[in-house]
Amino acid sequence: MNNFSFRCPTRIVFGKDTIAKVAENIRDFGGSRVLMVYGGGSIKRNGVYETVTASMKEAGIYYVELPGVQPNPRLSLVLRGIEVFRAEKLDFILAVGGGSVIDTCKAISFGLAVPEGKDIWDDYFMVAGAPIPRGPLLGTVLTLPATGSEMSNSCVISNEKTNVKRGVNHENNYPAFSITDPQVCFTLPPFQTACGNVDMFSHLMERYFTNTPDVALTDALLEASMRVIVQYGPMAYRNPTDYACRENLMLASTLAHNNLFGCGRVQDWASHWLEHELSGEYDIAHGAGLAIMIPAWMKYVWKTNEKRFAQFATNIMGSRVPVSETERLVMDGITRFEDWCHSMGLVTRLSDAGITDKDFELMATRMLTGGRVFAGHFKELYHEDIVNIYRLAL
Amino acid sequence: MNNFSFRCPTRIVFGKDTIAKVAENIRDFGGSRVLMVYGGGSIKRNGVYETVTASMKEAGIYYVELPGVQPNPRLSLVLRGIEVFRAEKLDFILAVGGGSVIDTCKAISFGLAVPEGKDIWDDYFMVAGAPIPRGPLLGTVLTLPATGSEMSNSCVISNEKTNVKRGVNHENNYPAFSITDPQVCFTLPPFQTACGNVDMFSHLMERYFTNTPDVALTDALLEASMRVIVQYGPMAYRNPTDYACRENLMLASTLAHNNLFGCGRVQDWASHWLEHELSGEYDIAHGAGLAIMIPAWMKYVWKTNEKRFAQFATNIMGSRVPVSETERLVMDGITRFEDWCHSMGLVTRLSDAGITDKDFELMATRMLTGGRVFAGHFKELYHEDIVNIYRLAL
Repeated sequence: MNNFSFRCPTRIVFGKDTIAKVAENIRDFGGSRVLMVYGGGSIKRNGVYETVTASMKEAGIYYVELPGVQPNPRLSLVLRGIEVFRAEKLDFILAVGGGSVIDTCKAISFGLAVPEGKDIWDDYFMVAGAPIPRGPLLGTVLTLPATGSEMSNSCVISNEKTNVKRGVNHENNYPAFSITDPQVCFTLPPFQTACGNVDMFSHLMERYFTNTPDVALTDALLEASMRVIVQYGPMAYRNPTDYACRENLMLASTLAHNNLFGCGRVQDWASHWLEHELSGEYDIAHGAGLAIMIPAWMKYVWKTNEKRFAQFATNIMGSRVPVSETERLVMDGITRFEDWCHSMGLVTRLSDAGITDKDFELMATRMLTGGRVFAGHFKELYHEDIVNIYRLAL
Repeated sequence: MNNFSFRCPTRIVFGKDTIAKVAENIRDFGGSRVLMVYGGGSIKRNGVYETVTASMKEAGIYYVELPGVQPNPRLSLVLRGIEVFRAEKLDFILAVGGGSVIDTCKAISFGLAVPEGKDIWDDYFMVAGAPIPRGPLLGTVLTLPATGSEMSNSCVISNEKTNVKRGVNHENNYPAFSITDPQVCFTLPPFQTACGNVDMFSHLMERYFTNTPDVALTDALLEASMRVIVQYGPMAYRNPTDYACRENLMLASTLAHNNLFGCGRVQDWASHWLEHELSGEYDIAHGAGLAIMIPAWMKYVWKTNEKRFAQFATNIMGSRVPVSETERLVMDGITRFEDWCHSMGLVTRLSDAGITDKDFELMATRMLTGGRVFAGHFKELYHEDIVNIYRLAL
């Protein structure tokens, strides 16, 4: 494997009825004046809003609410959050929601530390590898296991003016704490459960497809995690209140993206880039977009490293096709992945999502901007490759 | 699984030629006057001493050396380290060595923060669950993958006056950083490689044997890690300079004990307690003692949860005995574990280590002191059980 440095200081508070511990955790990390960020009304319907605010009130913590985060979170709300935080002289940021809410909070945090004369979008999101400044600490109360943002260093935001979606990764993005109570999943719509399952799987799969040699341990950890998601995902989709399913999926989701299992590996991430352009243009759900882009990417690149694709088919998707029949084994693995998505009500073709080929050239062009020369690392993808993969996904 | 809170803030700096980064990492965590702790002369023979001191000198870091840590590290050297740290007005502790050196440093660190009127041994090591105070930060340069202490919250010290060995676990014990270069393993004596392999395996196995339900994900992660150690351990024993083996084992060792894979599980730890009394009394190497105590513990407790032992035999030790023949399957798993130890030159019986039954009663009595009512959680072990297990190990 390659040399690496890894540090993930996020405290995970996991389990039943842990959300009431939010004030105690905010205090542990020195917060007393909180910007509380959330999305639509779901946290008011499932009781999370009530538990969080009651906990803060009881502890004498002052808070200001910033609701309205949408899926594929918008830059405009990030800018609004920065304004409110400054105007109210706050000292801590609390995300109550899924990845969109958490990523909004991460961007507000480092946005507060952007030096004068620099722009959060042009100088950070649009500059590959830009060093992210350290802003105020943030905590999260997770309501949807999917993005892994609760224990990850990544932050993805959409600029609604340009329809561009971009992510930044940096050690300063790790939350101070994240509270994850699997019971919040009981009331998720099945579609969100399905999208979440594909999303968490994708974070492992982007790390799994590598050409880095001698990665036996992380291979085994990634395979173990993916097998659990493949097994429990459809069960949670069918039985939303099965706690044993929900808790194993929720923990898998958190570990899938904290990068421990990706240490020392060159990672791919082409499927995510392909999906980001898709949801930047069409506002499709991220997990639903991944269910379409992953199989197309796989079909386009598998010959780069047939052995790894055979290993994926056998060790993760449970294919029994003999290793000697490589192509059939690889295709069986991809088909099994598609079937797994279908079993949770997701489509795996653009045409089934009502998307045509009219924007493929535009999306490919947009993907390779801001210092990006190619997409992916398992196989380097250039403009023509990207268009070809979108075509394969039709 | 059970509710849990997990936070492991240690930075891991992993890979070839990373030891020269030690000064940079000390600076990152605010150190400038360092207590450098190490063992016998091995770091002077393998070049690690030279690299570490050159790095600190070049960065203008002042350091005082405290050599002389022995296996089963002594309380007396901890007390000496506390004195030196105070007298020299130091601000950072650096462990250069294996688990004994690191644990000595952890004890020096919290020993410096013990309030007046309290005693580090009587009020902390001898009091189950005592809250460990936060002392100065420490970093480590690991020279032997085995104990996992480089990323763990545990610290085990022996009191040479009473022959008692005790461990404490606390969040304040995590090192700030650990540098782990697999190349340091190339010059390890084969016996140390063997003991290290059993030790890292044991940390996973102590977490694996649980009766906590619904732990599919952590089960899978533990099994994946143990399989890698079972496979690569004897290879590294036979081919000491095989980097691919060494790097996978070293990372497995670090992850085996940082407790991520033990989250939400009631863990056992009886085999460790059994071994601690053994090495407290006889000064046997920890890994060598575990190779003896683990099979005896297994034979004594397996009926508590036959299914888990069958899973261990099949999923980790690779037994092909049908699940329907439970007892034969379980015994085959235990035999395979013993054979694995033998393949690395270790014995699995007390008699083969020259130890008789004369101190069994004493060791059982000593184990259950300091607030300890029973040993283990998979099956609670009382005085008579403990003596019986020692007898089984003869």
